[in-house]
Amino acid sequence: MISWSAHPLGLPPRSPEMVAVPGAKRVIEVSAFVAAPLAGMTLAGMGCDVLRVDPPGGGLDFCRWPVTAAGESIFWAGLNRGKRSVIVDFRRDEGRELVAGMVAVDGPEGGIFLTNLGAAGALRHDRLCKLRSDVVSVQVEGYPDGRSAVDYTIAASTGIPMVTGPEGHLGPVNSPLPTWDIATGLNAVIGAQEALRRRDATGAGALVRIALSDVARGILASLGFADEGRLAAEPRSRDGNYLYGAFGRDFLLADGSRVMIVAITLKQWRSLVSALGMAEDVAELERSGRIDLDREGDRFRSRREIAALIEPWCAARGCPEVAAALDAHGALWSPYGSAADFVGSPTGAAPGGARPDDPPVGGPAEVQRGAAAEGGLVHDVGLAYRLDGEASRPLGTAPTLGQDTESVLSELLGLSQHEIGRLHDEGLVEGPALGAGVGNV
Amino acid sequence: MISWSAHPLGLPPRSPEMVAVPGAKRVIEVSAFVAAPLAGMTLAGMGCDVLRVDPPGGGLDFCRWPVTAAGESIFWAGLNRGKRSVIVDFRRDEGRELVAGMVAVDGPEGGIFLTNLGAAGALRHDRLCKLRSDVVSVQVEGYPDGRSAVDYTIAASTGIPMVTGPEGHLGPVNSPLPTWDIATGLNAVIGAQEALRRRDATGAGALVRIALSDVARGILASLGFADEGRLAAEPRSRDGNYLYGAFGRDFLLADGSRVMIVAITLKQWRSLVSALGMAEDVAELERSGRIDLDREGDRFRSRREIAALIEPWCAARGCPEVAAALDAHGALWSPYGSAADFVGSPTGAAPGGARPDDPPVGGPAEVQRGAAAEGGLVHDVGLAYRLDGEASRPLGTAPTLGQDTESVLSELLGLSQHEIGRLHDEGLVEGPALGAGVGNV
Repeated sequence: MISWSAHPLGLPPRSPEMVAVPGAKRVIEVSAFVAAPLAGMTLAGMGCDVLRVDPPGGGLDFCRWPVTAAGESIFWAGLNRGKRSVIVDFRRDEGRELVAGMVAVDGPEGGIFLTNLGAAGALRHDRLCKLRSDVVSVQVEGYPDGRSAVDYTIAASTGIPMVTGPEGHLGPVNSPLPTWDIATGLNAVIGAQEALRRRDATGAGALVRIALSDVARGILASLGFADEGRLAAEPRSRDGNYLYGAFGRDFLLADGSRVMIVAITLKQWRSLVSALGMAEDVAELERSGRIDLDREGDRFRSRREIAALIEPWCAARGCPEVAAALDAHGALWSPYGSAADFVGSPTGAAPGGARPDDPPVGGPAEVQRGAAAEGGLVHDVGLAYRLDGEASRPLGTAPTLGQDTESVLSELLGLSQHEIGRLHDEGLVEGPALGAGVGNV
Repeated sequence: MISWSAHPLGLPPRSPEMVAVPGAKRVIEVSAFVAAPLAGMTLAGMGCDVLRVDPPGGGLDFCRWPVTAAGESIFWAGLNRGKRSVIVDFRRDEGRELVAGMVAVDGPEGGIFLTNLGAAGALRHDRLCKLRSDVVSVQVEGYPDGRSAVDYTIAASTGIPMVTGPEGHLGPVNSPLPTWDIATGLNAVIGAQEALRRRDATGAGALVRIALSDVARGILASLGFADEGRLAAEPRSRDGNYLYGAFGRDFLLADGSRVMIVAITLKQWRSLVSALGMAEDVAELERSGRIDLDREGDRFRSRREIAALIEPWCAARGCPEVAAALDAHGALWSPYGSAADFVGSPTGAAPGGARPDDPPVGGPAEVQRGAAAEGGLVHDVGLAYRLDGEASRPLGTAPTLGQDTESVLSELLGLSQHEIGRLHDEGLVEGPALGAGVGNV
């Protein structure tokens, strides 16, 4: 009938984790990049049936780096775990109407739309509400007035890049970690949960809007970044790796490795002083400087003098010796490591060095490793929160692009093979490319 | 009877925002620093009645920097907005029993405990469940095996500091932004919502545990950081402010200001090319390098050559001219700015420069500015998600430490003035310090 429907066995089998919980909410996701896909992935981990809808050839992030040698996106494989994949060309009116139909399907599990780019035409919230009055639309955007932004541009606005990096460095130091995207995706989940709770109680739908800029503004205000310039006696400045307002910094060890050592609380400070046996030096610092290093502010003001006491101690020791001494006194520290080692160890690689043989201790499961691109494997770490001490279940693999188009059109929308064939011939829907998945990189 | 109860009028009036919604859930929070207080603050913004419990003199974060000249914490004032404050010495057995009593008070609104440091003795989840079977305990921790960690030590483990900062820099570059704390606090809210949804449906309580390390591992796995070293053809390296996998970087303008310019999608790239009128130069680059800059990977590989085209254009123009040209073509960019300017402008300071007179457009409200320390004011930006287009309500002021001790003991626990006086004389509970609030910094 339609070429791709003849090859269902060519697809990888669905992992059991991807079979949604009976009665689970169904989320139609039209998204790209980080925030909205992260929200959808989190909802999938909570048991929702998440249908990611992409245009033919894949969405804007289908080839986002990192990519394999064959050009398949490791990024996409990570953020779309646990979802189903449907190809509909939502850039066309008829495609949006088809997706709107998926959102509006009857039943308490339906009526949920998540997007950062598709709220137009038939997918506008007011239009969706004409099809189904209790729709919950979750819209991720750049600014609250609808202007575009991405994590990189929001981050530039926050002032954080001007207080990151080595003292004396000129210009901004950007972070490769998209904090605002992450926080926006999690806020979208919180907003969705709240709207669904309200819908369960009252029957009312909701339009939930979350702007990257609002997320950033709220967090900057909460943590003091917004007001310290105006109110603080000694506001933060670019200060290398010293932590602000107490004591903490990285130190180089004899074996070339590095550790982060932290003393924010009085207990952490006293543990550090006893681990290094530096009580007399500290007392001398206090006498000569007329300061009290039990006070976190004095530790911050004397951070360079304190660091000068720690540097030679660290420079004379390798990581195992440093680890033993600091752990024996309960000091707070961690070695610097790699993402691969850290993610690969359920209890974290630190302190005490890598522990590759650690058994899982109820942390996110990763027994299941999903098939990424080209037979590669990406780590499948489950949700971070654990209910009742259970390890959170893995999310499962990311879908092959378009693998669920036919089943969704037929089972969810009740379309016949003939109707599906017509939509396919019009280029409006597509199944999985045969033997492909390699995009334009 | 007890000294401080005679001075209720000395306290600042409660703002209307701090009066909880009738029937709102009551959360007992025993916490310090970022993740758990951020979770409590978010729940307060959602309408919960959040009682933050601190020991006499204030918790571990009561003096956390930034602080005013008088030593009052701007940080504390930000993260405890919208909460009530109760002083109970939960470091002692009797104090923990008192707090456990608050958690276990009857009624559908009660039975919720949020902590990152108090789950001991009578406040262990199993002990709480003996007082009330449906308690929901939300426990934020460092590692899933219970070992301590803070954002600074987790960040060291992630590998991110080794790919942050100028090319050629040796050693880690830490971020001052506590991404893992932020993501953990938001995950704690998600876990709490999920557990409360389940309790509403089934009557069952829950122990919800969230470790900073699990949050970080999950996000690193989702975004590709965990697997790119193993699977990617060209994994990320320390590369200054170039964004990875497409085109983006900061540029210096003629007036000394800086902008971040981004071209991840094809549309963003074409907008940039036309805004700068550099189509011919780009075509020449493509011919000579046998590349196709419509492909994001080729833009990344040619990032230095592309930047060399943009640098002189930016260096010859001030911000207004750059803004006009980029905006006219719909290119994606933002000026670098300060946290104060960004938070102070409801639509964000960018693009197009600061817009201090912008009216609110449904973003987080900040009409309400809370009283911080010493008569200062901290910005009161509400929650990031907006339901039905309404501006989210401000969170209100942070409480004076201990201002609600007496009312909570009498109204929630039904203690008599005589009993409260006895607890006070034993040093187990305390009201607000008179005219004080200045801690040990």
